[in-house]
Amino acid sequence: MRVIETVNEMARWPRTGNIVLVPTMGALHEGHRKLIKTGKALTQGEGNLIVSIYVNPTQFNDKEDFKAYPKTSEQDYEMCKEEEVDLIFCPSDNEMYSERESVSVIEKRLARHLCGSTRQGHFDGVCTVVTKLFNIIRPTTAVFGKKDYQQLAIIKQLVSDLNFSIEILGAETIREQNGLAISSRNRFLNTEERKQCHAIHKALVEMDLSNEKQCSELITLGKSIIKSEAPLGRLDYLEIVDRQTMEPIQTIDRPALAAMAIFFGNTRLIDNIEINSL
Amino acid sequence: MRVIETVNEMARWPRTGNIVLVPTMGALHEGHRKLIKTGKALTQGEGNLIVSIYVNPTQFNDKEDFKAYPKTSEQDYEMCKEEEVDLIFCPSDNEMYSERESVSVIEKRLARHLCGSTRQGHFDGVCTVVTKLFNIIRPTTAVFGKKDYQQLAIIKQLVSDLNFSIEILGAETIREQNGLAISSRNRFLNTEERKQCHAIHKALVEMDLSNEKQCSELITLGKSIIKSEAPLGRLDYLEIVDRQTMEPIQTIDRPALAAMAIFFGNTRLIDNIEINSL
Repeated sequence: MRVIETVNEMARWPRTGNIVLVPTMGALHEGHRKLIKTGKALTQGEGNLIVSIYVNPTQFNDKEDFKAYPKTSEQDYEMCKEEEVDLIFCPSDNEMYSERESVSVIEKRLARHLCGSTRQGHFDGVCTVVTKLFNIIRPTTAVFGKKDYQQLAIIKQLVSDLNFSIEILGAETIREQNGLAISSRNRFLNTEERKQCHAIHKALVEMDLSNEKQCSELITLGKSIIKSEAPLGRLDYLEIVDRQTMEPIQTIDRPALAAMAIFFGNTRLIDNIEINSL
Repeated sequence: MRVIETVNEMARWPRTGNIVLVPTMGALHEGHRKLIKTGKALTQGEGNLIVSIYVNPTQFNDKEDFKAYPKTSEQDYEMCKEEEVDLIFCPSDNEMYSERESVSVIEKRLARHLCGSTRQGHFDGVCTVVTKLFNIIRPTTAVFGKKDYQQLAIIKQLVSDLNFSIEILGAETIREQNGLAISSRNRFLNTEERKQCHAIHKALVEMDLSNEKQCSELITLGKSIIKSEAPLGRLDYLEIVDRQTMEPIQTIDRPALAAMAIFFGNTRLIDNIEINSL
Protein backbone atom coordinates (compact mmCIF):
# COMPACT_ATOMS: atom_id res chain seq x y z
CA MET A 1 0.00 0.00 0.00
CA ARG A 2 1.44 3.31 -1.08
CA VAL A 3 1.07 6.49 0.98
CA ILE A 4 1.28 9.85 -0.82
CA GLU A 5 1.40 13.12 1.11
CA THR A 6 1.99 15.73 -1.58
CA VAL A 7 -0.35 17.07 -4.24
CA ASN A 8 2.35 17.01 -6.91
CA GLU A 9 3.20 13.37 -6.35
CA MET A 10 -0.49 12.44 -6.35
CA ALA A 11 -1.17 14.42 -9.53
CA ARG A 12 1.73 12.74 -11.34
CA TRP A 13 0.93 9.23 -10.13
CA PRO A 14 0.47 6.94 -13.18
CA ARG A 15 -3.10 5.74 -13.61
CA THR A 16 -4.57 2.73 -15.39
CA GLY A 17 -8.00 1.13 -15.30
CA ASN A 18 -10.73 2.15 -12.89
CA ILE A 19 -9.53 4.63 -10.29
CA VAL A 20 -11.94 4.45 -7.37
CA LEU A 21 -11.78 7.14 -4.70
CA VAL A 22 -13.18 6.91 -1.19
CA PRO A 23 -12.79 10.42 0.27
CA THR A 24 -12.64 10.44 4.09
CA MET A 25 -11.63 12.64 6.99
CA GLY A 26 -9.89 9.70 8.66
CA ALA A 27 -11.00 8.30 12.03
CA LEU A 28 -12.10 5.31 9.97
CA HIS A 29 -14.87 3.08 11.32
CA GLU A 30 -17.08 0.27 10.08
CA GLY A 31 -19.06 2.74 7.96
CA HIS A 32 -15.88 3.64 6.11
CA ARG A 33 -15.01 -0.06 5.81
CA LYS A 34 -18.27 -0.49 3.91
CA LEU A 35 -17.36 2.39 1.55
CA ILE A 36 -13.89 0.90 1.04
CA LYS A 37 -15.26 -2.61 0.36
CA THR A 38 -17.74 -1.11 -2.12
CA GLY A 39 -14.87 0.76 -3.78
CA LYS A 40 -12.61 -2.30 -3.86
CA ALA A 41 -15.27 -4.33 -5.67
CA LEU A 42 -15.44 -1.61 -8.33
CA THR A 43 -11.75 -1.82 -9.21
CA GLN A 44 -12.47 -5.34 -10.48
CA GLY A 45 -8.97 -6.44 -9.61
CA GLU A 46 -7.38 -4.20 -12.24
CA GLY A 47 -7.70 -0.57 -11.32
CA ASN A 48 -6.77 1.11 -8.09
CA LEU A 49 -8.59 1.94 -4.90
CA ILE A 50 -7.54 5.24 -3.35
CA VAL A 51 -8.60 6.39 0.11
CA SER A 52 -8.04 10.07 0.79
CA ILE A 53 -7.66 11.10 4.42
CA TYR A 54 -7.97 14.84 4.93
CA VAL A 55 -9.76 16.78 7.65
CA ASN A 56 -10.79 19.76 5.55
CA PRO A 57 -10.84 22.90 7.70
CA THR A 58 -13.02 24.92 5.31
CA GLN A 59 -16.07 22.71 5.81
CA PHE A 60 -16.17 23.15 9.59
CA ASN A 61 -18.45 25.99 10.58
CA ASP A 62 -17.53 25.33 14.23
CA LYS A 63 -13.84 25.74 15.11
CA GLU A 64 -14.16 23.63 18.26
CA ASP A 65 -15.66 20.79 16.24
CA PHE A 66 -12.66 21.02 13.89
CA LYS A 67 -10.12 21.01 16.73
CA ALA A 68 -11.82 18.06 18.42
CA TYR A 69 -12.16 16.00 15.24
CA PRO A 70 -10.53 12.64 16.05
CA LYS A 71 -7.24 11.67 14.40
CA THR A 72 -6.38 7.95 14.39
CA SER A 73 -3.80 7.59 11.61
CA GLU A 74 -2.37 4.26 12.71
CA GLN A 75 -5.70 2.51 12.97
CA ASP A 76 -6.75 4.16 9.67
CA TYR A 77 -3.71 2.71 7.87
CA GLU A 78 -4.38 -0.65 9.49
CA MET A 79 -7.92 -0.79 8.17
CA CYS A 80 -6.80 0.32 4.70
CA LYS A 81 -4.22 -2.48 4.65
CA GLU A 82 -6.81 -5.03 5.74
CA GLU A 83 -9.11 -3.93 2.94
CA GLU A 84 -6.29 -3.98 0.35
CA VAL A 85 -6.44 -0.29 -0.41
CA ASP A 86 -3.83 0.50 -3.08
CA LEU A 87 -3.04 4.07 -2.13
CA ILE A 88 -3.69 6.47 0.73
CA PHE A 89 -3.60 10.17 -0.12
CA CYS A 90 -3.14 12.18 3.08
CA PRO A 91 -2.03 15.75 2.33
CA SER A 92 -1.32 18.44 4.93
CA ASP A 93 -3.26 21.72 5.02
CA ASN A 94 -0.28 23.49 3.43
CA GLU A 95 -0.42 21.08 0.53
CA MET A 96 -4.14 21.56 0.01
CA TYR A 97 -4.54 25.31 0.46
CA SER A 98 -2.24 28.22 -0.34
CA GLU A 99 -2.37 31.40 1.71
CA ARG A 100 -3.82 33.28 -1.24
CA GLU A 101 -6.63 30.82 -2.00
CA SER A 102 -9.55 32.74 -3.48
CA VAL A 103 -11.51 30.33 -5.68
CA SER A 104 -14.38 28.28 -4.33
CA VAL A 105 -17.15 26.05 -5.60
CA ILE A 106 -20.64 26.69 -4.32
CA GLU A 107 -24.03 25.01 -4.64
CA LYS A 108 -27.03 27.28 -4.28
CA ARG A 109 -30.16 25.12 -4.28
CA LEU A 110 -29.81 21.82 -2.44
CA ALA A 111 -27.47 23.40 0.10
CA ARG A 112 -30.15 25.81 1.34
CA HIS A 113 -31.87 23.05 3.30
CA LEU A 114 -31.13 20.69 6.23
CA CYS A 115 -27.46 20.83 7.29
CA GLY A 116 -26.85 23.66 4.82
CA SER A 117 -29.26 25.92 6.67
CA THR A 118 -27.77 25.29 10.12
CA ARG A 119 -24.08 24.88 9.20
CA GLN A 120 -23.19 28.14 7.42
CA GLY A 121 -20.64 27.62 4.64
CA HIS A 122 -20.32 23.88 5.29
CA PHE A 123 -21.24 22.74 1.80
CA ASP A 124 -19.15 25.46 0.11
CA GLY A 125 -16.18 23.90 1.91
CA VAL A 126 -17.27 20.40 0.90
CA CYS A 127 -17.82 21.33 -2.77
CA THR A 128 -14.47 23.11 -2.97
CA VAL A 129 -12.39 20.37 -1.37
CA VAL A 130 -14.13 17.63 -3.35
CA THR A 131 -13.46 19.52 -6.60
CA LYS A 132 -9.81 19.82 -5.58
CA LEU A 133 -9.57 16.11 -4.68
CA PHE A 134 -11.27 15.14 -7.95
CA ASN A 135 -8.74 17.21 -9.92
CA ILE A 136 -5.73 15.94 -7.98
CA ILE A 137 -6.74 12.27 -7.93
CA ARG A 138 -8.77 12.15 -11.18
CA PRO A 139 -10.86 9.13 -10.19
CA THR A 140 -13.28 7.38 -12.54
CA THR A 141 -15.60 6.56 -9.61
CA ALA A 142 -16.04 8.02 -6.12
CA VAL A 143 -17.96 6.46 -3.23
CA PHE A 144 -19.81 8.53 -0.63
CA GLY A 145 -21.92 7.36 2.30
CA LYS A 146 -25.70 7.73 2.42
CA LYS A 147 -25.47 8.84 6.05
CA ASP A 148 -24.45 12.22 4.62
CA TYR A 149 -27.37 12.05 2.22
CA GLN A 150 -27.49 15.75 1.44
CA GLN A 151 -23.75 15.78 0.78
CA LEU A 152 -24.19 12.84 -1.61
CA ALA A 153 -26.98 14.69 -3.44
CA ILE A 154 -24.88 17.87 -3.67
CA ILE A 155 -21.83 15.98 -4.96
CA LYS A 156 -24.00 14.38 -7.67
CA GLN A 157 -25.19 17.88 -8.62
CA LEU A 158 -21.58 19.13 -8.61
CA VAL A 159 -20.43 16.34 -10.92
CA SER A 160 -23.34 16.94 -13.28
CA ASP A 161 -23.12 20.76 -13.32
CA LEU A 162 -19.34 20.98 -13.63
CA ASN A 163 -19.19 18.09 -16.13
CA PHE A 164 -16.83 15.82 -14.23
CA SER A 165 -16.51 12.40 -15.92
CA ILE A 166 -16.82 10.64 -12.57
CA GLU A 167 -19.43 8.14 -11.44
CA ILE A 168 -20.75 8.84 -7.93
CA LEU A 169 -21.91 5.90 -5.83
CA GLY A 170 -23.82 6.05 -2.57
CA ALA A 171 -23.14 3.34 0.02
CA GLU A 172 -25.62 2.27 2.68
CA THR A 173 -25.28 3.47 6.26
CA ILE A 174 -23.75 1.02 8.74
CA ARG A 175 -25.34 0.88 12.19
CA GLU A 176 -24.54 -0.30 15.67
CA GLN A 177 -26.74 -3.06 17.11
CA ASN A 178 -29.13 -0.53 18.62
CA GLY A 179 -29.55 1.21 15.27
CA LEU A 180 -27.23 4.17 15.86
CA ALA A 181 -25.53 5.14 12.61
CA ILE A 182 -21.78 4.68 13.00
CA SER A 183 -19.96 8.01 13.05
CA SER A 184 -16.54 9.30 14.06
CA ARG A 185 -18.34 11.58 16.48
CA ASN A 186 -20.07 8.73 18.40
CA ARG A 187 -16.94 8.40 20.57
CA PHE A 188 -17.80 11.75 22.17
CA LEU A 189 -21.07 10.39 23.61
CA ASN A 190 -21.22 9.40 27.28
CA THR A 191 -22.89 6.18 28.39
CA GLU A 192 -26.31 7.69 28.98
CA GLU A 193 -26.26 9.64 25.70
CA ARG A 194 -25.19 6.56 23.79
CA LYS A 195 -28.10 4.62 25.30
CA GLN A 196 -30.61 7.27 24.29
CA CYS A 197 -29.22 7.57 20.76
CA HIS A 198 -31.03 4.44 19.62
CA ALA A 199 -34.08 6.71 19.43
CA ILE A 200 -32.70 8.51 16.34
CA HIS A 201 -32.96 5.51 14.03
CA LYS A 202 -36.09 4.28 15.81
CA ALA A 203 -37.87 7.58 15.17
CA LEU A 204 -36.89 7.53 11.50
CA VAL A 205 -37.98 3.89 11.08
CA GLU A 206 -41.33 4.56 12.74
CA MET A 207 -41.85 7.51 10.39
CA ASP A 208 -41.07 5.26 7.42
CA LEU A 209 -43.35 2.45 8.62
CA SER A 210 -46.29 4.75 9.33
CA ASN A 211 -49.06 4.89 6.77
CA GLU A 212 -49.49 8.60 7.42
CA LYS A 213 -49.06 10.76 4.29
CA GLN A 214 -49.01 14.19 5.97
CA CYS A 215 -45.41 15.17 6.64
CA SER A 216 -46.33 17.40 9.57
CA GLU A 217 -47.95 14.38 11.27
CA LEU A 218 -44.94 12.21 10.54
CA ILE A 219 -42.60 14.83 11.99
CA THR A 220 -44.77 15.06 15.10
CA LEU A 221 -44.50 11.28 15.42
CA GLY A 222 -40.71 11.36 15.11
CA LYS A 223 -40.34 14.23 17.56
CA SER A 224 -42.51 12.47 20.14
CA ILE A 225 -40.23 9.40 20.00
CA ILE A 226 -37.14 11.58 20.44
CA LYS A 227 -38.78 13.45 23.30
CA SER A 228 -39.77 10.33 25.21
CA GLU A 229 -36.74 8.12 24.48
CA ALA A 230 -33.89 10.63 24.12
CA PRO A 231 -34.61 13.46 26.56
CA LEU A 232 -30.92 14.48 26.49
CA GLY A 233 -31.14 15.16 22.75
CA ARG A 234 -31.69 18.68 21.34
CA LEU A 235 -33.05 18.53 17.81
CA ASP A 236 -31.25 20.69 15.25
CA TYR A 237 -33.80 19.69 12.61
CA LEU A 238 -36.16 16.87 11.71
CA GLU A 239 -37.53 17.31 8.21
CA ILE A 240 -39.03 15.43 5.30
CA VAL A 241 -37.67 16.49 1.94
CA ASP A 242 -37.76 15.62 -1.73
CA ARG A 243 -34.98 13.08 -2.20
CA GLN A 244 -33.42 14.90 -5.15
CA THR A 245 -33.97 18.60 -4.46
CA MET A 246 -33.75 18.45 -0.65
CA GLU A 247 -36.76 20.77 -0.53
CA PRO A 248 -39.22 20.21 2.32
CA ILE A 249 -42.43 18.57 1.15
CA GLN A 250 -45.95 18.55 2.63
CA THR A 251 -47.15 15.08 1.68
CA ILE A 252 -45.44 11.81 0.83
CA ASP A 253 -46.24 11.99 -2.89
CA ARG A 254 -42.74 11.30 -4.30
CA PRO A 255 -39.47 9.63 -3.27
CA ALA A 256 -38.85 11.29 0.08
CA LEU A 257 -36.19 11.45 2.74
CA ALA A 258 -36.67 11.93 6.46
CA ALA A 259 -33.51 13.56 7.83
CA MET A 260 -32.50 14.48 11.35
CA ALA A 261 -29.68 16.36 13.06
CA ILE A 262 -29.57 16.24 16.84
CA PHE A 263 -27.18 17.43 19.52
CA PHE A 264 -26.19 15.41 22.57
CA GLY A 265 -24.11 17.87 24.56
CA ASN A 266 -21.78 19.41 21.97
CA THR A 267 -21.91 16.31 19.78
CA ARG A 268 -24.02 16.73 16.68
CA LEU A 269 -25.27 13.54 15.03
CA ILE A 270 -27.10 13.13 11.73
CA ASP A 271 -29.12 10.32 10.26
CA ASN A 272 -31.80 9.79 7.63
CA ILE A 273 -34.10 7.24 6.05
CA GLU A 274 -35.49 6.92 2.55
CA ILE A 275 -39.26 6.97 2.83
CA ASN A 276 -40.58 4.69 0.15
CA SER A 277 -44.30 4.54 0.82
CA LEU A 278 -46.29 6.15 -1.99
CA MET B 1 -11.21 19.02 -38.95
CA ARG B 2 -13.79 17.46 -36.69
CA VAL B 3 -16.75 19.40 -35.31
CA ILE B 4 -18.36 18.18 -32.08
CA GLU B 5 -21.58 19.69 -30.78
CA THR B 6 -22.44 17.51 -27.79
CA VAL B 7 -20.86 17.30 -24.36
CA ASN B 8 -21.04 13.51 -24.29
CA GLU B 9 -19.25 13.09 -27.59
CA MET B 10 -16.58 15.58 -26.54
CA ALA B 11 -16.09 13.90 -23.16
CA ARG B 12 -15.69 10.48 -24.80
CA TRP B 13 -13.37 11.68 -27.56
CA PRO B 14 -10.09 9.66 -27.42
CA ARG B 15 -7.10 11.78 -26.37
CA THR B 16 -3.37 11.31 -26.94
CA GLY B 17 -0.44 13.66 -26.53
CA ASN B 18 -0.78 17.36 -25.76
CA ILE B 19 -4.36 18.55 -25.88
CA VAL B 20 -4.30 22.30 -26.38
CA LEU B 21 -7.50 24.27 -25.90
CA VAL B 22 -8.23 27.74 -27.20
CA PRO B 23 -11.55 28.74 -25.64
CA THR B 24 -13.43 31.38 -27.65
CA MET B 25 -16.87 32.90 -28.03
CA GLY B 26 -16.56 32.72 -31.82
CA ALA B 27 -16.58 35.83 -34.04
CA LEU B 28 -12.94 34.91 -34.61
CA HIS B 29 -10.52 37.66 -35.61
CA GLU B 30 -6.76 38.12 -35.96
CA GLY B 31 -6.40 38.13 -32.16
CA HIS B 32 -7.89 34.64 -32.05
CA ARG B 33 -5.69 33.60 -34.96
CA LYS B 34 -2.70 34.48 -32.79
CA LEU B 35 -4.08 32.32 -29.92
CA ILE B 36 -4.71 29.46 -32.34
CA LYS B 37 -1.21 29.69 -33.88
CA THR B 38 0.27 29.73 -30.36
CA GLY B 39 -1.81 26.68 -29.50
CA LYS B 40 -0.90 24.85 -32.72
CA ALA B 41 2.81 25.28 -32.02
CA LEU B 42 2.28 23.65 -28.60
CA THR B 43 0.79 20.46 -30.04
CA GLN B 44 4.23 19.80 -31.58
CA GLY B 45 2.66 17.94 -34.47
CA GLU B 46 1.47 15.09 -32.24
CA GLY B 47 -1.29 16.23 -29.94
CA ASN B 48 -4.49 17.98 -30.83
CA LEU B 49 -5.56 21.59 -31.03
CA ILE B 50 -9.14 22.18 -29.95
CA VAL B 51 -10.98 25.47 -30.39
CA SER B 52 -14.15 25.80 -28.36
CA ILE B 53 -16.77 28.20 -29.66
CA TYR B 54 -19.43 29.02 -27.12
CA VAL B 55 -21.07 32.33 -26.27
CA ASN B 56 -21.57 31.73 -22.58
CA PRO B 57 -24.75 33.50 -21.41
CA THR B 58 -23.84 33.42 -17.70
CA GLN B 59 -20.88 35.77 -18.12
CA PHE B 60 -22.90 38.57 -19.71
CA ASN B 61 -24.07 41.05 -17.11
CA ASP B 62 -25.84 42.99 -19.90
CA LYS B 63 -28.55 41.08 -21.79
CA GLU B 64 -28.40 43.43 -24.78
CA ASP B 65 -24.66 42.85 -25.08
CA PHE B 66 -25.36 39.09 -25.10
CA LYS B 67 -28.07 39.36 -27.76
CA ALA B 68 -25.89 41.57 -29.94
CA TYR B 69 -22.79 39.41 -29.62
CA PRO B 70 -21.73 38.65 -33.21
CA LYS B 71 -22.09 35.12 -34.61
CA THR B 72 -20.00 34.30 -37.67
CA SER B 73 -19.84 30.48 -37.70
CA GLU B 74 -18.85 30.06 -41.35
CA GLN B 75 -15.91 32.44 -41.17
CA ASP B 76 -14.93 30.91 -37.80
CA TYR B 77 -14.77 27.42 -39.33
CA GLU B 78 -12.83 28.82 -42.27
CA MET B 79 -10.18 30.34 -40.02
CA CYS B 80 -9.93 27.14 -37.96
CA LYS B 81 -9.38 25.14 -41.17
CA GLU B 82 -6.71 27.55 -42.35
CA GLU B 83 -4.89 27.20 -39.04
CA GLU B 84 -5.20 23.40 -39.06
CA VAL B 85 -7.30 23.19 -35.94
CA ASP B 86 -8.03 19.51 -35.23
CA LEU B 87 -11.37 19.87 -33.52
CA ILE B 88 -14.02 22.52 -32.96
CA PHE B 89 -16.22 22.06 -29.90
CA CYS B 90 -19.35 24.18 -30.33
CA PRO B 91 -22.10 23.09 -27.91
CA SER B 92 -25.55 24.63 -27.63
CA ASP B 93 -26.82 26.26 -24.43
CA ASN B 94 -28.93 23.15 -23.73
CA GLU B 95 -25.81 21.02 -23.90
CA MET B 96 -23.88 23.26 -21.55
CA TYR B 97 -26.49 24.08 -18.91
CA SER B 98 -29.37 22.11 -17.48
CA GLU B 99 -32.47 23.85 -16.19
CA ARG B 100 -31.59 22.85 -12.66
CA GLU B 101 -27.99 24.12 -12.69
CA SER B 102 -27.03 25.20 -9.18
CA VAL B 103 -23.25 24.83 -8.86
CA SER B 104 -20.89 27.66 -9.69
CA VAL B 105 -17.23 28.53 -9.34
CA ILE B 106 -16.36 31.91 -7.92
CA GLU B 107 -13.19 33.92 -7.35
CA LYS B 108 -13.30 36.41 -4.52
CA ARG B 109 -10.08 38.45 -4.59
CA LEU B 110 -8.84 39.33 -8.08
CA ALA B 111 -12.41 39.61 -9.35
CA ARG B 112 -13.22 42.50 -7.00
CA HIS B 113 -11.28 44.93 -9.20
CA LEU B 114 -11.43 46.39 -12.72
CA CYS B 115 -14.02 44.60 -14.90
CA GLY B 116 -15.16 42.58 -11.88
CA SER B 117 -16.28 45.72 -10.09
CA THR B 118 -18.27 47.12 -13.02
CA ARG B 119 -19.58 43.88 -14.56
CA GLN B 120 -21.48 42.19 -11.73
CA GLY B 121 -21.21 38.39 -11.86
CA HIS B 122 -19.10 38.41 -15.02
CA PHE B 123 -16.17 36.46 -13.61
CA ASP B 124 -18.41 33.98 -11.78
CA GLY B 125 -19.79 33.12 -15.21
CA VAL B 126 -16.30 32.93 -16.69
CA CYS B 127 -14.92 30.73 -13.89
CA THR B 128 -17.89 28.38 -14.07
CA VAL B 129 -17.88 27.91 -17.84
CA VAL B 130 -14.09 27.53 -17.97
CA THR B 131 -14.26 24.84 -15.25
CA LYS B 132 -16.93 23.06 -17.27
CA LEU B 133 -14.93 23.31 -20.50
CA PHE B 134 -11.79 22.07 -18.72
CA ASN B 135 -13.69 19.05 -17.40
CA ILE B 136 -15.37 18.27 -20.72
CA ILE B 137 -12.30 18.78 -22.92
CA ARG B 138 -9.58 17.83 -20.39
CA PRO B 139 -6.79 19.82 -22.07
CA THR B 140 -3.15 19.70 -21.00
CA THR B 141 -2.70 23.36 -21.98
CA ALA B 142 -5.10 26.26 -22.54
CA VAL B 143 -4.33 29.56 -24.24
CA PHE B 144 -5.97 32.85 -23.23
CA GLY B 145 -5.37 36.35 -24.60
CA LYS B 146 -3.63 39.08 -22.62
CA LYS B 147 -6.20 41.61 -23.81
CA ASP B 148 -8.43 40.07 -21.12
CA TYR B 149 -5.58 40.36 -18.65
CA GLN B 150 -7.73 40.12 -15.52
CA GLN B 151 -9.49 37.05 -16.92
CA LEU B 152 -6.09 35.45 -17.57
CA ALA B 153 -4.98 36.18 -14.00
CA ILE B 154 -8.23 34.77 -12.58
CA ILE B 155 -7.98 31.61 -14.71
CA LYS B 156 -4.42 31.06 -13.44
CA GLN B 157 -5.73 31.42 -9.89
CA LEU B 158 -8.60 29.00 -10.69
CA VAL B 159 -6.21 26.37 -12.04
CA SER B 160 -3.94 26.73 -9.02
CA ASP B 161 -6.67 26.80 -6.37
CA LEU B 162 -8.76 23.98 -7.83
CA ASN B 163 -5.66 21.89 -8.68
CA PHE B 164 -6.27 21.47 -12.39
CA SER B 165 -3.29 19.83 -14.13
CA ILE B 166 -3.46 22.33 -16.98
CA GLU B 167 -0.83 24.80 -18.12
CA ILE B 168 -2.23 28.27 -18.82
CA LEU B 169 -0.54 30.40 -21.45
CA GLY B 170 -1.16 34.08 -22.15
CA ALA B 171 -0.86 35.28 -25.76
CA GLU B 172 -0.02 38.86 -26.73
CA THR B 173 -2.70 41.27 -27.87
CA ILE B 174 -3.00 41.83 -31.61
CA ARG B 175 -3.68 45.42 -32.76
CA GLU B 176 -4.92 47.27 -35.79
CA GLN B 177 -2.49 49.64 -37.47
CA ASN B 178 -3.64 52.56 -35.32
CA GLY B 179 -3.02 50.55 -32.14
CA LEU B 180 -6.64 49.56 -31.40
CA ALA B 181 -6.70 46.10 -29.81
CA ILE B 182 -8.61 43.75 -32.10
CA SER B 183 -11.95 42.72 -30.59
CA SER B 184 -15.17 41.15 -31.79
CA ARG B 185 -16.92 44.31 -30.57
CA ASN B 186 -14.90 46.69 -32.78
CA ARG B 187 -17.40 46.05 -35.58
CA PHE B 188 -20.01 47.99 -33.62
CA LEU B 189 -17.96 51.24 -33.81
CA ASN B 190 -18.92 53.91 -36.35
CA THR B 191 -16.28 55.66 -38.47
CA GLU B 192 -15.73 58.54 -36.08
CA GLU B 193 -15.56 56.29 -33.01
CA ARG B 194 -13.11 53.96 -34.73
CA LYS B 195 -10.90 56.95 -35.53
CA GLN B 196 -10.88 58.15 -31.93
CA CYS B 197 -10.18 54.65 -30.55
CA HIS B 198 -6.49 54.91 -31.37
CA ALA B 199 -6.30 57.03 -28.21
CA ILE B 200 -6.84 53.96 -25.97
CA HIS B 201 -3.55 52.30 -26.83
CA LYS B 202 -1.83 55.67 -27.16
CA ALA B 203 -2.83 56.67 -23.63
CA LEU B 204 -1.60 53.34 -22.22
CA VAL B 205 1.71 53.55 -24.12
CA GLU B 206 2.29 57.12 -22.91
CA MET B 207 1.63 56.00 -19.35
CA ASP B 208 4.16 53.17 -19.79
CA LEU B 209 6.80 55.46 -21.35
CA SER B 210 6.46 58.16 -18.70
CA ASN B 211 9.08 58.23 -15.98
CA GLU B 212 6.43 59.26 -13.47
CA LYS B 213 6.17 56.85 -10.50
CA GLN B 214 2.98 58.23 -8.92
CA CYS B 215 0.02 56.25 -10.25
CA SER B 216 -2.41 59.14 -9.74
CA GLU B 217 -0.23 61.29 -12.02
CA LEU B 218 -0.03 58.54 -14.61
CA ILE B 219 -3.78 58.12 -14.57
CA THR B 220 -4.23 61.88 -14.99
CA LEU B 221 -1.91 61.68 -17.99
CA GLY B 222 -3.88 58.82 -19.53
CA LYS B 223 -7.22 60.50 -18.92
CA SER B 224 -6.03 63.73 -20.51
CA ILE B 225 -5.08 61.89 -23.70
CA ILE B 226 -8.47 60.17 -23.81
CA LYS B 227 -10.24 63.47 -23.18
CA SER B 228 -8.43 65.33 -25.94
CA GLU B 229 -8.21 62.60 -28.57
CA ALA B 230 -11.32 60.49 -27.89
CA PRO B 231 -14.05 62.94 -26.79
CA LEU B 232 -16.74 60.38 -27.75
CA GLY B 233 -15.34 57.90 -25.22
CA ARG B 234 -16.81 57.48 -21.72
CA LEU B 235 -14.30 55.89 -19.37
CA ASP B 236 -15.57 52.93 -17.35
CA TYR B 237 -12.24 52.75 -15.51
CA LEU B 238 -8.59 53.57 -15.97
CA GLU B 239 -6.50 52.04 -13.20
CA ILE B 240 -3.02 50.88 -12.35
CA VAL B 241 -2.93 47.59 -10.49
CA ASP B 242 -0.54 44.96 -9.17
CA ARG B 243 -0.09 42.54 -12.05
CA GLN B 244 -0.83 39.45 -9.95
CA THR B 245 -3.41 40.55 -7.39
CA MET B 246 -5.21 43.13 -9.58
CA GLU B 247 -5.25 45.47 -6.57
CA PRO B 248 -4.85 49.19 -7.29
CA ILE B 249 -1.39 50.47 -6.35
CA GLN B 250 -0.16 53.98 -5.49
CA THR B 251 3.34 53.91 -6.93
CA ILE B 252 5.09 51.90 -9.63
CA ASP B 253 7.15 49.81 -7.22
CA ARG B 254 6.39 46.34 -8.61
CA PRO B 255 5.27 44.69 -11.87
CA ALA B 256 2.20 46.75 -12.70
CA LEU B 257 -0.61 46.82 -15.20
CA ALA B 258 -2.42 49.86 -16.55
CA ALA B 259 -5.91 48.76 -17.58
CA MET B 260 -8.77 50.62 -19.20
CA ALA B 261 -12.40 50.02 -20.06
CA ILE B 262 -14.17 52.63 -22.14
CA PHE B 263 -17.55 52.97 -23.80
CA PHE B 264 -18.12 54.35 -27.28
CA GLY B 265 -21.90 54.51 -27.50
CA ASN B 266 -23.02 51.12 -26.17
CA THR B 267 -19.79 49.44 -27.19
CA ARG B 268 -17.46 48.70 -24.30
CA LEU B 269 -13.80 48.18 -25.16
CA ILE B 270 -10.97 47.06 -22.89
CA ASP B 271 -7.21 47.24 -23.21
CA ASN B 272 -4.14 47.19 -20.99
CA ILE B 273 -0.38 47.48 -20.92
CA GLU B 274 2.24 45.91 -18.67
CA ILE B 275 4.13 48.74 -17.01
CA ASN B 276 7.70 47.57 -16.62
CA SER B 277 9.52 50.63 -15.35
CA LEU B 278 10.76 50.15 -11.81
